[in-house]
Amino acid sequence: MAVPGRILAGVLTLDVALGDRAYPILIGESLLSDAGTLGAYLDARDVLLVTNTTVGPLYAEPVMRALQGRRVVDVRLPDGEQHKTLENVSRVLDVLVANRFGRDSIVVALGGGVVGDLAGFSAACYQRGIAFAQLPTTLLSQVDSSVGGKTGVNHPGGKNLIGAFHQPRVVLSDTATLRTLPARELRAGLAEVIKYALVFDSEFLAWLEANLDALLALEPGALAHAIYRSCELKAEVVLRDEHERGDRALLNFGHTFGHAIETATGYTQWLHGEAVGAGMLIAADMSARIGLLKNEDVERVRVLVQRAGLATPPPRIGAERALQYMSVDKKVKAGRIRLVLLEGLGRARFTADYPDGALGATLAAHFG
Amino acid sequence: MAVPGRILAGVLTLDVALGDRAYPILIGESLLSDAGTLGAYLDARDVLLVTNTTVGPLYAEPVMRALQGRRVVDVRLPDGEQHKTLENVSRVLDVLVANRFGRDSIVVALGGGVVGDLAGFSAACYQRGIAFAQLPTTLLSQVDSSVGGKTGVNHPGGKNLIGAFHQPRVVLSDTATLRTLPARELRAGLAEVIKYALVFDSEFLAWLEANLDALLALEPGALAHAIYRSCELKAEVVLRDEHERGDRALLNFGHTFGHAIETATGYTQWLHGEAVGAGMLIAADMSARIGLLKNEDVERVRVLVQRAGLATPPPRIGAERALQYMSVDKKVKAGRIRLVLLEGLGRARFTADYPDGALGATLAAHFG
Repeated sequence: MAVPGRILAGVLTLDVALGDRAYPILIGESLLSDAGTLGAYLDARDVLLVTNTTVGPLYAEPVMRALQGRRVVDVRLPDGEQHKTLENVSRVLDVLVANRFGRDSIVVALGGGVVGDLAGFSAACYQRGIAFAQLPTTLLSQVDSSVGGKTGVNHPGGKNLIGAFHQPRVVLSDTATLRTLPARELRAGLAEVIKYALVFDSEFLAWLEANLDALLALEPGALAHAIYRSCELKAEVVLRDEHERGDRALLNFGHTFGHAIETATGYTQWLHGEAVGAGMLIAADMSARIGLLKNEDVERVRVLVQRAGLATPPPRIGAERALQYMSVDKKVKAGRIRLVLLEGLGRARFTADYPDGALGATLAAHFG
Repeated sequence: MAVPGRILAGVLTLDVALGDRAYPILIGESLLSDAGTLGAYLDARDVLLVTNTTVGPLYAEPVMRALQGRRVVDVRLPDGEQHKTLENVSRVLDVLVANRFGRDSIVVALGGGVVGDLAGFSAACYQRGIAFAQLPTTLLSQVDSSVGGKTGVNHPGGKNLIGAFHQPRVVLSDTATLRTLPARELRAGLAEVIKYALVFDSEFLAWLEANLDALLALEPGALAHAIYRSCELKAEVVLRDEHERGDRALLNFGHTFGHAIETATGYTQWLHGEAVGAGMLIAADMSARIGLLKNEDVERVRVLVQRAGLATPPPRIGAERALQYMSVDKKVKAGRIRLVLLEGLGRARFTADYPDGALGATLAAHFG
């Protein structure tokens, strides 16, 4: 297993070394109550704090207090994926303009992936890009959106169709915020953690198998390590492929199948991580069907995903509709769906090179 | 004077060497009627042609014809700066989504700066960035927007407040399109050409003084050279400073003063280039007032700007209001307005280091 990063007063720090856009990720218990850390890292005269009506009442106060002396304006969006729209970006931009925020101001996202993606895209568009910081308060956003610089919003025609690459200046992940996170969302976040292990790191997979109960019990040390290692694995692939032309596609393991589930259910019944959990089981199954992955490895995937509470069967929408929903996704090149498949535990490939009937048979088995 | 680029069948080609985002600018008479060139450079299966209701009827047909065999969808926006809005970006994105355009499609802007900025920003946002090509049909867009990668739209609170840096794949500048351009817009475009000369290149300035009449008479060779040299000068500064943190600010010569004129008149009575023309006269005057520029050089600026038909006096809004409008601009750092001033013909500096009363006195002299 990788050696954890430098430890400062119980805080893990990971440097994402993106050249002139390098930034640190700090992970620790009660980081958001640490005025010194917040004050030092959110360094700008004008701060726009973007949060939502659920997270704001819980965590905005310590953040505002830590930023005393600056001009802090806050925007509270309604909570939920359905509000991740261009209209709400426009609303955030209106606030920036109305308050005459300059190029040297900073947009701070306090909340989960929706808040982070929307606030980040607003920062990317305002005056062609101002600074941006993430204070992620869900496990999913701590392990997923905090690395990679993907920002954006949904379009009625599809998720994340509108967006930009925009790197944050800092990410402050407070593990204590996970205590107020609904258990279902914690498990959905674990789907992405499991994904990193399955795609990149068999040792981390073994660690997860040994520590899943500690994670579900919100043990701070276990959480910090899982978040740290997930971010580190994601950072490694993003560094190799910042603009998603190659390896980075591996991060979509489980996502293309999951996308069909999310689209079929209108993004309302399944959480993203739940769909990814089910999608990983389908992808592992297909990997075995075409002889890439051993059956015993598929079983290890199934057991872990099940223990995380993520093995809900997909809706019975039929193979044809599932295929149609998958093709709307962005992983289509010249008409053929490319998939991330496992060649072993901790090893994946992104490929459109699979036997003709394999995808149809897999979809029929899972979507009925 | 710089040696013109390689000449292929009467077409000047300038390579903008932006690393992995390098692209060529082709400049020539009747380029848009050359199906071979268009077909070769606009290489994608799916093409979204964005134009407006003025330019579309004049030039869309040859472009569509050259792209036979591809899927070409076209969007015609209403003509005018007031339509450069986030709402119209949303409309372009809707068309991309509705037609299920993939990541390998291309957005082609046919028109002036409004169409180019809006289409480019739409391409930048769609799926976090797809390919984009410019077919500029105004002198202003041929010499200004075709280099630098600035895309974006206006906000009711200010011009170009929403946008992104997104480099085109190719720029095809057809000098024949300038024959259908209103004379007033041609002169407005010349403001930017004169700006490049004043800020960067005294030899080019002398060439302009000698060839202004040929340019006003739309002589193809003179136009091609003026466009080529303007793009080359802009490319040099953009290469040094892609994200506008330093030298690139010099391109705003005349713009901060011009911005006050445009704001005061609601962006309706003055064309951008006309405001820049008047703004350059003010900036040259202020440069002389603080002893940076000789009076005889101010006179050369005045004569050239006047010959180009760009010496309209600013509205009498008073120094205080002018100052207020200038401060809304993006060139404010820590509350003090930085200005581009001339230290000679062909040499400029970006500075907030000027005597306290100089700006007020200059504004009083010009804005009454």
